[in-house]
Amino acid sequence: MNKIAYILLADGFELIEAMTPLDVLKRGGISVITVSITNSLQVRSSQNVIVTADTTITSAEFKNGDILILPGGYPGYENLSTSKEVINLIEYYVKNRKIIAAICGAPTIFAKHNLLKNIPITCHSAVKNEMNGYNYTGNNVEISENIITAIGAGVSLSFALAIANSVLNNNDIEKIKKGMEII
Amino acid sequence: MNKIAYILLADGFELIEAMTPLDVLKRGGISVITVSITNSLQVRSSQNVIVTADTTITSAEFKNGDILILPGGYPGYENLSTSKEVINLIEYYVKNRKIIAAICGAPTIFAKHNLLKNIPITCHSAVKNEMNGYNYTGNNVEISENIITAIGAGVSLSFALAIANSVLNNNDIEKIKKGMEII
Repeated sequence: MNKIAYILLADGFELIEAMTPLDVLKRGGISVITVSITNSLQVRSSQNVIVTADTTITSAEFKNGDILILPGGYPGYENLSTSKEVINLIEYYVKNRKIIAAICGAPTIFAKHNLLKNIPITCHSAVKNEMNGYNYTGNNVEISENIITAIGAGVSLSFALAIANSVLNNNDIEKIKKGMEII
Repeated sequence: MNKIAYILLADGFELIEAMTPLDVLKRGGISVITVSITNSLQVRSSQNVIVTADTTITSAEFKNGDILILPGGYPGYENLSTSKEVINLIEYYVKNRKIIAAICGAPTIFAKHNLLKNIPITCHSAVKNEMNGYNYTGNNVEISENIITAIGAGVSLSFALAIANSVLNNNDIEKIKKGMEII
């Protein structure tokens, strides 16, 4: 059965951090569902692009999901961090050892809510001081078992491919790369 | 005065080919305006993400623009190619030697309408046979005076930075790269 990925969208999300994983994973046959964290399907990115999400956080069925993706972007990642529904969901994915992928400012959500302490992690350098209690590496992408983190929008493609690698085989990855003209 | 870029959105456009230039250029202070090529502001990407464009092709004022961006994605680039308004607009930008940036399948629009012949050009390898009469290079990004072309979704960031480089100074580019964590 196809894997399922949920991407959480909050006002102020970084569009390419959210949409590059969506694009890459859909090319690999994964079901990707965008989720507004409010009751409105319309979500406005940090660069003022309005995207219509597939569903809302109170309507979605997350238990069947394999991957939870947390984009950065300001104030998107802060809006994620202050949402009780989002934190409950992250805690559920942590507890069930599902894949959680966070980029840019989004890894700070873990720190603010005392989740996943002591693991190797990366995030945007502007917020790395918030990552006390983690092994902050500063790498572009960091993979620590089921937790994938990345440093910023410029590495969105590497972030997306790391997520894809965690659930797809090499043939699928090669097909994605060929379609995207990645040598 | 800030430069102005228009990005044309047709149903079936490749989201990251459109949105990575938007993101990079907006970070550099350029006014970026997304334009639906139909009368509806809602445009559906090739991966089924609905984006609300800023305006429509019959409402937009293109003469003040400095840059015209043509995303690929199937059937987005074919929908661009069969739109009389789009072709008129490309011809206007060609004639006035403004910057035109096309990626993936979009450079084939030039070939189909006998525009910009004999220049160095790149595009997705799957459609390179349509580029008779051009110097097809197969490079990731090709810059030929005011015409910028790129090979596919996987090089969206290089494509976006090439467009940014054509209108911004080094300080602005460094600021963009720092924000996006591009080393």
